[in-house]
Amino acid sequence: MNKEKGLGVVETKYFTFAKGKDKLLLESSQSLGPITLAYETYGSLNDQKSNAILVGHALSGDAHAAGFKDGDKKPGWWDSMIGPGKAFDTDKYFVICSNVIGGCKGSTGPSSINPETNEPYALNFPIITISDMVRAQKCLIDSLGIKKLLCVSGGSMGGMQALAWVALFPEAVGSSIPIATTWKHSPQQIAFDEVGRQAVMADPSWKNGNYYGGGLPQRGLAVARMIGHITYMSDESMEEKFSRKLKESNYTFTFKTDFEVEGYLRYRGDSFVKRFDANSYLYITKAMDYFDLSAGKLITQGQKIDTRFLVIAFQSDWLYPPYQSREIIHFLKMCHVDATYCEIQSSYGHDAFLLEVPEQTHLIKHFLKTTFESIS
Amino acid sequence: MNKEKGLGVVETKYFTFAKGKDKLLLESSQSLGPITLAYETYGSLNDQKSNAILVGHALSGDAHAAGFKDGDKKPGWWDSMIGPGKAFDTDKYFVICSNVIGGCKGSTGPSSINPETNEPYALNFPIITISDMVRAQKCLIDSLGIKKLLCVSGGSMGGMQALAWVALFPEAVGSSIPIATTWKHSPQQIAFDEVGRQAVMADPSWKNGNYYGGGLPQRGLAVARMIGHITYMSDESMEEKFSRKLKESNYTFTFKTDFEVEGYLRYRGDSFVKRFDANSYLYITKAMDYFDLSAGKLITQGQKIDTRFLVIAFQSDWLYPPYQSREIIHFLKMCHVDATYCEIQSSYGHDAFLLEVPEQTHLIKHFLKTTFESIS
Repeated sequence: MNKEKGLGVVETKYFTFAKGKDKLLLESSQSLGPITLAYETYGSLNDQKSNAILVGHALSGDAHAAGFKDGDKKPGWWDSMIGPGKAFDTDKYFVICSNVIGGCKGSTGPSSINPETNEPYALNFPIITISDMVRAQKCLIDSLGIKKLLCVSGGSMGGMQALAWVALFPEAVGSSIPIATTWKHSPQQIAFDEVGRQAVMADPSWKNGNYYGGGLPQRGLAVARMIGHITYMSDESMEEKFSRKLKESNYTFTFKTDFEVEGYLRYRGDSFVKRFDANSYLYITKAMDYFDLSAGKLITQGQKIDTRFLVIAFQSDWLYPPYQSREIIHFLKMCHVDATYCEIQSSYGHDAFLLEVPEQTHLIKHFLKTTFESIS
Repeated sequence: MNKEKGLGVVETKYFTFAKGKDKLLLESSQSLGPITLAYETYGSLNDQKSNAILVGHALSGDAHAAGFKDGDKKPGWWDSMIGPGKAFDTDKYFVICSNVIGGCKGSTGPSSINPETNEPYALNFPIITISDMVRAQKCLIDSLGIKKLLCVSGGSMGGMQALAWVALFPEAVGSSIPIATTWKHSPQQIAFDEVGRQAVMADPSWKNGNYYGGGLPQRGLAVARMIGHITYMSDESMEEKFSRKLKESNYTFTFKTDFEVEGYLRYRGDSFVKRFDANSYLYITKAMDYFDLSAGKLITQGQKIDTRFLVIAFQSDWLYPPYQSREIIHFLKMCHVDATYCEIQSSYGHDAFLLEVPEQTHLIKHFLKTTFESIS
């Protein structure tokens, strides 16, 4: 990849707040502080501070959404969408991405040191919600002097953040682009998350969360991640990628890896445990399961909001099926909100929000341009 | 339930074969023997021995398909379909169901004693395939003096057996009713099985399969079963049954059970480990993953067969989606085989083959009647 045409080398910054008595009050009624958010920014904030776009990441994502960090061979997780001339065009807009609270990529989470004990929080970390993640992001946005975001966007859990921003701070959000997401986790989505958590908690190395400094619950977390990867792909994309292809020329007639799809899942599971904290997996999936902005919780009855919406779903996404996006759109239309829906044909399943670049770019570029013009 | 109207009390019988030098040669080139098959029969075999129907069970099923065993409160797993006046009408037909080899419900499997070591086989049990299961069933059918089965049927893995019977012994099968099944496991189906196996093998109590007589790999097997249960239901049936209903009046803000769907899965996982052997889970899922009778392997080119087919699929079954049944039907039609396809509207997902009784009964009764008339 030619680093010259993209953002080049980027750096992660850190913002610490909620110090001392100013702890952040969470939805659970517990409070958390001090809080550090790891974040990155791309492009330049204009003088009016009116061109800022906040991008939210998915379950296993982080603040490093685009560009290259020193020494990395792969760019950030949404580099195909963020950069000069791209969907989120850094020649025009100032793009911000922060790691969520509860995460393990620089923001305060269960693996962070609890200042009261000088030990990692582990399960003493309070349960957090998507709204809590957004309230923490709001502190970061405030610190940058931004009163109103041009847009909040993201796929999957990032899309939940794009919705929660509108529910919490409608006047601070010019537009919202929730992608491949839902306004409430369904029982099937909860079920997949719960099985992943049970896989982690079944690992004796998990030790009720107190594994820091010792052996990690790697096998349990790997199983959880394997389940996740099945749900991120579609039946069709698995058939295209793997079919029944074997690793060797014939069946092994053992429990070793026979099929390429098995090897892929084992590899994905094993590599995930090297970069992700098992307790963060528990906290973040729980936050998604608690997520419910259906009906009157996104916008209350009679409420007038100026936020414009572009809702995007993918036809083969069975983890966050298009009908869930259509529910959001139906509600927004009933509330007379300026909202557009686009269902993109794709065989990639839920992963499509990371992979279907040209069509998303086409839609998002135009939507941001008209939003920016309307507020300028 | 009124036991008078059904089969009443039934008993499980045992047939042992492949003794001494007559071991069963398996697809892996290994051999297995002696083999015991647990089986049950319902109804009476007629003098011509022309009214026998073999029913195959799914992954976690057993020989006890119908009626009540002494002391049981619940009847066999397909009691709604087998009995006097039911789909498989025991007033007319002689119905046989046997536990597969590799299983743990009375048939020889990894938890059986290996006569060469006087210890449980554990992982010394040879890898078995669906064809091996069927070859063992053929020995049982032969021992009953039945030259030709009126029908072989079953749902899920039972449907694979109904297909494998035709591939192996076409002249011994008058008709086949594969239900909610496939003629080859897809990469997504393999992936779900592989994650289940990894969950079992990740449990330190699994001990490379040598856990008999000690602590069982219960937590790993429970996770595997929880994954299974998600795939047996549909998104729609989960929504109908659970929606986002809570166990308590509000979120617990802990990792305890918040949602009813979580409680259901934990209960299902925990109860499964009491009745099922973890190694059998590994062997049987592997047999399904190896299953591939696509294209020329079900019927070879130019082969003429008299077996009639009724292929049934369910619209909301996403584990064995209807397109897989349509592939079978397409192939059978191209081979000029007498084959009928019916896709039943149902919200139950894969579980529908156990639950959608009236429509299956209507279809199967008529199909069996015309088959029986045509051969009598």
